Amino acid sequence: MNTTTDQERLAGLAGALRRLHGGDLLVLPNAWDAASAGVVEGAGFPAVATASAAITAMLGYPDGEGAPWQEMFAAGARIARAVAVPVTMDAEGGYGLAPADLVGRLLDAGVVGCNLEDTDHRDGGLKDPRRQADWLAEVRAAADATGVPLVINARVDVFLPAGRVPEEDRADEAVRRGRLYREAGADCVYPIGVGDPEVLATLVAGIGGPINGNTGPRLPLAALREIGVARVSYGPRFYRAGLADFGRAIRDL
Amino acid sequence: MNTTTDQERLAGLAGALRRLHGGDLLVLPNAWDAASAGVVEGAGFPAVATASAAITAMLGYPDGEGAPWQEMFAAGARIARAVAVPVTMDAEGGYGLAPADLVGRLLDAGVVGCNLEDTDHRDGGLKDPRRQADWLAEVRAAADATGVPLVINARVDVFLPAGRVPEEDRADEAVRRGRLYREAGADCVYPIGVGDPEVLATLVAGIGGPINGNTGPRLPLAALREIGVARVSYGPRFYRAGLADFGRAIRDL
Repeated sequence: MNTTTDQERLAGLAGALRRLHGGDLLVLPNAWDAASAGVVEGAGFPAVATASAAITAMLGYPDGEGAPWQEMFAAGARIARAVAVPVTMDAEGGYGLAPADLVGRLLDAGVVGCNLEDTDHRDGGLKDPRRQADWLAEVRAAADATGVPLVINARVDVFLPAGRVPEEDRADEAVRRGRLYREAGADCVYPIGVGDPEVLATLVAGIGGPINGNTGPRLPLAALREIGVARVSYGPRFYRAGLADFGRAIRDL
Repeated sequence: MNTTTDQERLAGLAGALRRLHGGDLLVLPNAWDAASAGVVEGAGFPAVATASAAITAMLGYPDGEGAPWQEMFAAGARIARAVAVPVTMDAEGGYGLAPADLVGRLLDAGVVGCNLEDTDHRDGGLKDPRRQADWLAEVRAAADATGVPLVINARVDVFLPAGRVPEEDRADEAVRRGRLYREAGADCVYPIGVGDPEVLATLVAGIGGPINGNTGPRLPLAALREIGVARVSYGPRFYRAGLADFGRAIRDL
């Protein structure tokens, strides 16, 4: 972010992305490179989200902060450069960067939103929710200080097996975390991996702010809309489907 | 290439890639990133080729040396790091690098073969064939000086519309260029875009060394084998098919 013009442009994109969380369900078919981002924009979607699991695979690293963070921001920048719509980057756990540094690198990449997850990639378990909330508040403050209303999508990883939360406690724990993260200034809360419509409805009611959902056998887009989910993303699903198709095509050669 | 071990490993890979031009048709379904390279290796192909048109699109640049060459070598390195089989990189026109620099950067990327085309990306036309042969000979000498038998696939671009060669002159001009490039030390000659089996057979007979072909409506793999083509590649075909599938899938959301 070198000039006032850049800052104004990014502020406009961030504001637009934030407003997309208040209307009809925001559908984000995640992109993984410049061309796939162009396909998303070309199909009329009003924003582009990246999927870290796709990008790390593309770069040849394991997911979960397995790639050098410089390469992840470079990949985000290539995507942001390719489209005119707002881009939100799956920034995993924030790569251990200080809040102001994290925000600066996102904005330098031309990215105006981010996923930040509460998995601790050092051990694979969950971070303490209050410490995570404090950290999110610092990211919020660092972003606000730049004048760009960075859209923070705070991921709640209690439904992932690696979170090691007993199934019966997951909804309560997700509501508790989601509220803390909202109070810390997150624009949206993303309890990844919820496949049960009733659980998802409980979270939407309990957290009381925009929620990012996922589709699934029991959660088509229509169900997500009915439940009141604000945004839906697909992670590496399309990237992996393309690779699987490629594998099938070449095995037939 | 920092150590003797690296050099020996690369020499082994280059030798293996060169030997693959002497047996059954070498089929190279081109990869574009680390994961797609892994798919090619996983499907049992004995080598991986990159496609510059896919990689530039992935990076958000036009084909034809539109991307910064540093990014192209970085992409090649990510692919080479992802697989154990030999990797050959579509190095376009060589990016204006001096022969020793070009060879050094290929080997530093872990790449043991390259496509080098005779299109002049400054004006889109064809390079003078004798000057191109001289340059290829310098690349050959630079590679041999490192002890790694880099596999040079010399592309002959007379069948591309941008080459501006009248259709009736193309086969003769391709044979002339192919012979010059072989004499200069190219391991294989790649007259890209030949769709006519008779023309391809003329080139195979006239050039008298390994030829890289493309499949097409009149040139299934069986026809390429029958004609005596040594290797076949697909350029960005699979990458683009994946993007098209992605576009269709998200328009249905």
